[in-house]
Amino acid sequence: MSLEDRKVWRGFASDNYAGVHPELFEAMMAVNEGHEKAYGDDFVTGELTKVFKEHFGSSAEVFPVFNGTGANVVALAAVLDRWEAVICAETAHINADEGGAPEKMAGIKLWTVPTPDGKLTPELIKPHLFDIGSVHRAQIAAISITQTTELGTLYSVAEVKALAEFAHENNLVLHMDGARLSNAAAALDASFRAFTTDAGVDLVSFGGTKIGALAAEAVVVLNSERLAKSIPFLRKTSMQLPSKMRFVSVQLMALLDNDLAIRSARHANAMAKALDAGVRELAELSGGRVSVPNPTQANAVFPLLPSEIIETLQEEYWFYLWDHRIGQVRWMCAWDTRPEDVQGLLDALRSALKV
Amino acid sequence: MSLEDRKVWRGFASDNYAGVHPELFEAMMAVNEGHEKAYGDDFVTGELTKVFKEHFGSSAEVFPVFNGTGANVVALAAVLDRWEAVICAETAHINADEGGAPEKMAGIKLWTVPTPDGKLTPELIKPHLFDIGSVHRAQIAAISITQTTELGTLYSVAEVKALAEFAHENNLVLHMDGARLSNAAAALDASFRAFTTDAGVDLVSFGGTKIGALAAEAVVVLNSERLAKSIPFLRKTSMQLPSKMRFVSVQLMALLDNDLAIRSARHANAMAKALDAGVRELAELSGGRVSVPNPTQANAVFPLLPSEIIETLQEEYWFYLWDHRIGQVRWMCAWDTRPEDVQGLLDALRSALKV
Amino acid sequence: MSLEDRKVWRGFASDNYAGVHPELFEAMMAVNEGHEKAYGDDFVTGELTKVFKEHFGSSAEVFPVFNGTGANVVALAAVLDRWEAVICAETAHINADEGGAPEKMAGIKLWTVPTPDGKLTPELIKPHLFDIGSVHRAQIAAISITQTTELGTLYSVAEVKALAEFAHENNLVLHMDGARLSNAAAALDASFRAFTTDAGVDLVSFGGTKIGALAAEAVVVLNSERLAKSIPFLRKTSMQLPSKMRFVSVQLMALLDNDLAIRSARHANAMAKALDAGVRELAELSGGRVSVPNPTQANAVFPLLPSEIIETLQEEYWFYLWDHRIGQVRWMCAWDTRPEDVQGLLDALRSALKV
Amino acid sequence: MSLEDRKVWRGFASDNYAGVHPELFEAMMAVNEGHEKAYGDDFVTGELTKVFKEHFGSSAEVFPVFNGTGANVVALAAVLDRWEAVICAETAHINADEGGAPEKMAGIKLWTVPTPDGKLTPELIKPHLFDIGSVHRAQIAAISITQTTELGTLYSVAEVKALAEFAHENNLVLHMDGARLSNAAAALDASFRAFTTDAGVDLVSFGGTKIGALAAEAVVVLNSERLAKSIPFLRKTSMQLPSKMRFVSVQLMALLDNDLAIRSARHANAMAKALDAGVRELAELSGGRVSVPNPTQANAVFPLLPSEIIETLQEEYWFYLWDHRIGQVRWMCAWDTRPEDVQGLLDALRSALKV
Repeated sequence: MSLEDRKVWRGFASDNYAGVHPELFEAMMAVNEGHEKAYGDDFVTGELTKVFKEHFGSSAEVFPVFNGTGANVVALAAVLDRWEAVICAETAHINADEGGAPEKMAGIKLWTVPTPDGKLTPELIKPHLFDIGSVHRAQIAAISITQTTELGTLYSVAEVKALAEFAHENNLVLHMDGARLSNAAAALDASFRAFTTDAGVDLVSFGGTKIGALAAEAVVVLNSERLAKSIPFLRKTSMQLPSKMRFVSVQLMALLDNDLAIRSARHANAMAKALDAGVRELAELSGGRVSVPNPTQANAVFPLLPSEIIETLQEEYWFYLWDHRIGQVRWMCAWDTRPEDVQGLLDALRSALKV
Repeated sequence: MSLEDRKVWRGFASDNYAGVHPELFEAMMAVNEGHEKAYGDDFVTGELTKVFKEHFGSSAEVFPVFNGTGANVVALAAVLDRWEAVICAETAHINADEGGAPEKMAGIKLWTVPTPDGKLTPELIKPHLFDIGSVHRAQIAAISITQTTELGTLYSVAEVKALAEFAHENNLVLHMDGARLSNAAAALDASFRAFTTDAGVDLVSFGGTKIGALAAEAVVVLNSERLAKSIPFLRKTSMQLPSKMRFVSVQLMALLDNDLAIRSARHANAMAKALDAGVRELAELSGGRVSVPNPTQANAVFPLLPSEIIETLQEEYWFYLWDHRIGQVRWMCAWDTRPEDVQGLLDALRSALKV
Repeated sequence: MSLEDRKVWRGFASDNYAGVHPELFEAMMAVNEGHEKAYGDDFVTGELTKVFKEHFGSSAEVFPVFNGTGANVVALAAVLDRWEAVICAETAHINADEGGAPEKMAGIKLWTVPTPDGKLTPELIKPHLFDIGSVHRAQIAAISITQTTELGTLYSVAEVKALAEFAHENNLVLHMDGARLSNAAAALDASFRAFTTDAGVDLVSFGGTKIGALAAEAVVVLNSERLAKSIPFLRKTSMQLPSKMRFVSVQLMALLDNDLAIRSARHANAMAKALDAGVRELAELSGGRVSVPNPTQANAVFPLLPSEIIETLQEEYWFYLWDHRIGQVRWMCAWDTRPEDVQGLLDALRSALKV
Repeated sequence: MSLEDRKVWRGFASDNYAGVHPELFEAMMAVNEGHEKAYGDDFVTGELTKVFKEHFGSSAEVFPVFNGTGANVVALAAVLDRWEAVICAETAHINADEGGAPEKMAGIKLWTVPTPDGKLTPELIKPHLFDIGSVHRAQIAAISITQTTELGTLYSVAEVKALAEFAHENNLVLHMDGARLSNAAAALDASFRAFTTDAGVDLVSFGGTKIGALAAEAVVVLNSERLAKSIPFLRKTSMQLPSKMRFVSVQLMALLDNDLAIRSARHANAMAKALDAGVRELAELSGGRVSVPNPTQANAVFPLLPSEIIETLQEEYWFYLWDHRIGQVRWMCAWDTRPEDVQGLLDALRSALKV
C-alpha cells in the first residue's frame, strides 16, 4: 500500500475527523473468530440489548445502524404516518446537514423553527401547532431535538421534561438526535436514562461514531412496542442493516460497558471548556474583534472571528466556517484532542490577533 | 463485558456470517492515528481512487459505501430518471432480498425475468423491451446482473460482453451487482477489468464485506463523468456516506492491493468445489434423494435434499433453506471455511442419508 | 376556437376514448350555481356519502379522486406500512400500465403472479407467502385484484369470497381495482355490495370515467375506520384532492342514483358479447387464423389475429395491439358503442380475412 | 337525486368555491361527440398546443394536468435531480398548503424564506446560496415564485426579470406557480408571455380552475426541450395524466381563446379593489381596529380584523382566517363575485364594527 506518505495531524473540524478509539478495535477483534448469524441475530447483539436496557430502562430496545443520518431517518419514518411532519430547529442536522435525506428517503416534511441557540422550547413550537386535522397542512406528529445541539448547547433535564410533557399533551412523539449523546451525559453529569427515558423522550438516535466508534450508531426505542416492531423493517429498507452486526454491536457495548463513552466525552468537553476559557480571555483583549455568543456546554466552541484571520488559522488547525454571514466558526473537540492542541490553537489565535 | 459465553462455530449459511480478515484490522489500525477529513476527503480515500483505477481502468471512479443494498440503490438511482425502470432476474438480490429498498428508497420499478440459473441473456430480456417511449409502461433504462449470481453461477466474459453490447444497442446501461465480484474474478481467473470495464459494464457494486471486510462496499463508475458526478450526492441522501471513510477505504485498498480478495475468493471457491464434489458423490449413492441441479461455479452449492434431513443437518452446520417448495438448500463457503468444515458437513450428510 | 376540423369517429381502443355521458353534464350543470366549500366539504359530497352507503353498505366511506391510478395508489398506500408489499397479477394495471406510479409515488413493492386469464386465486398466491416476518423479503400486506380484469374476465362472487377469506386468514387486506366495476356488476347481475362488501373486500377503487364520467373515480373504504381516517390525508399528499369536488361527486351520484352506470355497462357488455359472437363465427371460418382464447365476460374481447391484417383493421377502427408476441389485440366496447360499429368491425374483419 | 335541498350562496373563502364558467361547459359539450384518443393524443390537445404557443411563445409546450399541486410537483420534479432542492417563500403554496406533497411525492427539499409580502427577491435569496457543491446541503436548483402570491401581491414584469436573471446567473431554474396567472395578467395589463417567457421564466404551473375551469391546470415549459421531454413521463407517474384529456384541453383553450380568463380575472380583481377601497374606508373609521397591511394587487384582500367580529362575519359570508396569531383574514373574489356580494360584506363589517 502507498500509505507511507500519510501525515498525522489533528484539528478542530469535527469529532468525526478523529480515528477509532483503540479499545474499540480490541473489542471488535475479541469477537472476530468464527461465524455469527448476520443481520442482528448474533450473540453479541443479543447481549447489547441487555446493556442498553441497563442504561435506558427495561423497556428500551436498541437497533444498531451505520450512521447518524440513517438513525434519524429510520427513527422518524417509524414514528410518522406517510402524510405527517416533524418540527425541528432550523439548525437541526436533519434539516441543515443531511442533504435532504429525510425528505428524499422518507418523504418527511420538516417544519423548521429559528432559535437563538439551537434549542427548541414549547413556546417556540406552540405557534406552529395549528390547522390540526387539516389535510392541507402536513400534520406535525413529532418534535425532534438534538442533544447536544448543533450549536454546542445543551438541554437540561428539566428542559427535556418540559418538551416531552408538551409533546405528549399534543399527541406528539419526542425524538432526540443523540449524535453526541455521550457528550450530553457527561456535561449533565447524569445517566443516559435520566435525560431520555425518565424525562419522557420516546426514541433516540444514539451516536457512537463521534465519540470514537467506527460507523456505530443506533436507534433506541425507549418505551413503545409498536415502534420497536417497525424499526427492523425500516432499518432494512433504509439500507441501514449491517450484515456483520456483531462488530457494530460490540463497539456500542464497549462504549457503554465501562463508561468509555462517558470518559471520552468528559475529556472532549473539558478540552472545549479550556478552549472556551482561552478564547474568551483573548476576546477581552481583542477590542471586540472576537466574541463567543453562546455558552460552551459540551465539546464545541462557536466564536466569531475577524474574517481576515480565519484562513490563516485554518492552515494550522483545520476547522469549519459555521456561518459565513457573521464570521462564526466552529471548533470541535474530540476524544483524542490533546491539551497541547488546544494551547496551540489559542497561541495561533493570539498571534493572529496580535494581542 | 458479558461476552465470555460466546461460542465459536462455523457454518455454511453465508459468507457474511464470517468475521473480518485479520489483515483488514491491521490495515485499519495502520491509519488510525490522528485526524483525517471526514466524508471522503481524506488521504486514504485519495489513494483508493488510484488503486481502483489500476484494477478497473483509468476512467474508473470509486465511491465507498456501507453495504450492498446501499451500493445497488445508489448506483441504480444515478442511472435512472425518476420515471424509469430496471430489468433484472427474478432471483436478483435487488428484487428478492432487499426488502423493497429499490422501490421504497428510490422509486425504482423492477421488471423481473424468470431464469433457469439466475443469469440474464439478451434473449431473455428482448421480449420485455416493448412500448418504448410510452408513458404507461415504466421505461427500462438499465439491466442489472449479479456476478456471481444469487444461485452460485457465473457469467463468462463473453456473456457479459454480449449483454453489454445488447444493452448499449438498446440505449440501456449495464449494472453489475458485484457483492461477490472477487469470487467471480477468482473463478474466471481474470482481472476485474476484463469482465467489467473491458466487457462494457457501465457501473459496478463492488463487494468487500462478503470477502472479509467490515462494512466496506463501493459503487464503481467505470466510464461516465455524468454518473460519477451524481453518485456523491446520491450517496449522501441515501444515507450511505461514511463519515470516517478512511477505514472503509483502507479495507478496500487492502483487499485489492496485494490480491487479498482474490486469494480469499480462490479459497472460498475451492471449498465450494470440494463440497460440490462430495455432495455429487453422495447424490449418486442416494438413489435420487439428493441432486445438484446447477453447476457450482463460485463459492456456493445449491443441492436439493430430502426435507426430513434438512433440519438435522442445520443443527450441526447452520445454512439456509433456499427454496422451500423444492427442498433446495444453499451452502455458502467463506474466506474462513476450513477443509475440516467441508468434510464435517459431508460426513453429516452421509450419516443423515445412511449411505 | 379552431375546432371545426375535428372529426367524429368511434373505435374499439378503450372505453376512455368515449366522451362524457350527456346526463352527467346535466348533473354537473345542475349544481353549478353559487359557491360550495372546496375539497369535499360541500353539500353534494355530503349527499354522495349517503348514496355510497346505500350501494356498498352503511360502513362504507367514499373518497372521490381524479383518476384510477390515483385511486389505486391512495388505496394501497393507506393499507401498507412503509415497508410492505402488494401481490397482484402480472397483468394488473398497477403493475403493467401505471408507469411505475405505485413504486414511484408510494414506494410500493409489487410481487407479481403470472395468470392464465388475469385472475388471481388462493392457489396462485400461496407459494408467494413465505418468509413471513423476515425483513429481507418485502412483506405482503395486501392482495390487489382487478374486477373486471385487464383481460376482460370476471371474478364470480364465490371467487371473490374465496380470495377474501384467504386474505383475512393470512392477515392480508383485499383491494379491488374497480376501474370497470360497473361492467362487473352488470355482468354478474349483482349489486355492487354483493361482490365487494358482502364478499369480504376491504377497499375498492371505484371507476366512473370508463363508464361515462369526466375524471371521476373514488376510493371506497368498505369497513375500516382506520383506513377511512388515513385516506383524506393520503389523497391530499397524492395530489388527488379535487378542489371543486362537487362536480366529481355529482357525477358519481348520477352514475349510481338511477342505475346510469349499470345501464351503460349492460350496453357496453352486450356490444362486446355481440362482437365476441361475431368474431368466434369468423374464427371458425378462418382455418385457425383467428381465435379468442379467453371468455368475453364484460366489455372487452381479446382475439388473436394474423399480424398482416391488424394494421389494416386499425385504420378503420382504432384499437390496441395487446400482446405483440402472439398477435393478441384488444377490442373494448364503451357506453357509446353502437351496434353498427360492432357490425362494421366484423365486416372489416371478414373482408380482411377473405372468408 | 336528493340534491333539491342544496342552497345557493356566495362567500369570499376562495376562488375555487366558485363553480364552472358556463362557457366552459359549452366548450366541453362541443367536443363530446365520438371518440378521441386518450391521454393527450387527441385532436383538441393538439390544437391546445398551438394556442399556448400563441400566448407563451413558439417554444412553449403545454401539458394539461388535474390540479395545481400536481402541476407544481410535476414541474419541479422535472427540474430537479433527485438530490436537489427548491427555494421558495415561506408562505408559498408548495410549502404551506400542499400537505407536504412536494416532499412526499417527489422527495423535494424546500428551503423557505420569510418574506414581508409573499414575494421573493434576489436579495432575500442570496444568503441561502452557500455550500454550493456540498453534498451535505441539499443543493438549490430552482427558485419557485407564485404569481399572484398567496398574499394577494403581484410581481411586476421588472421584478420577475430580475429574479430570472439572478436565477440564471446562479444556474437556477425559475418556476412560476401560476394558480392565479390570469389574475396577474389582468392586474399587470400584460400578455402572459410578457411576464413569463419574455421575462425569463423557465416553466409555469398554469391555473385554470380558480378562474372558472373544472379541474384544468397545466405545466407549461417555456423554453427547454429537455424539460418538455421529461414532463409526459412525470405526469403519468405522478397520477396527473387525464385519460379524457380533450375535456381538460378544451377548457384551457376556451379560457385563452377569447380572453375568457383575462375577462374573468379583470372582474375578480375589480371586485377585490372595490372591497379593498371599502374596507380601507371603514378602517379609517375604526380607530385602529381594522387595517390592511399589504396592497391589494389582484383578487384578494387580507385585512386585520378584531377577533370578536370574525366569527359573526363568517356566518354571513364564509371566508378563512389566514393568520390566527394576528387576526388576519383572507377575502378572495372569484369570477362570479357580484358587486352586491362585496357591498353586503362591507355592510356586514360596518355593522359589526358599529361605525
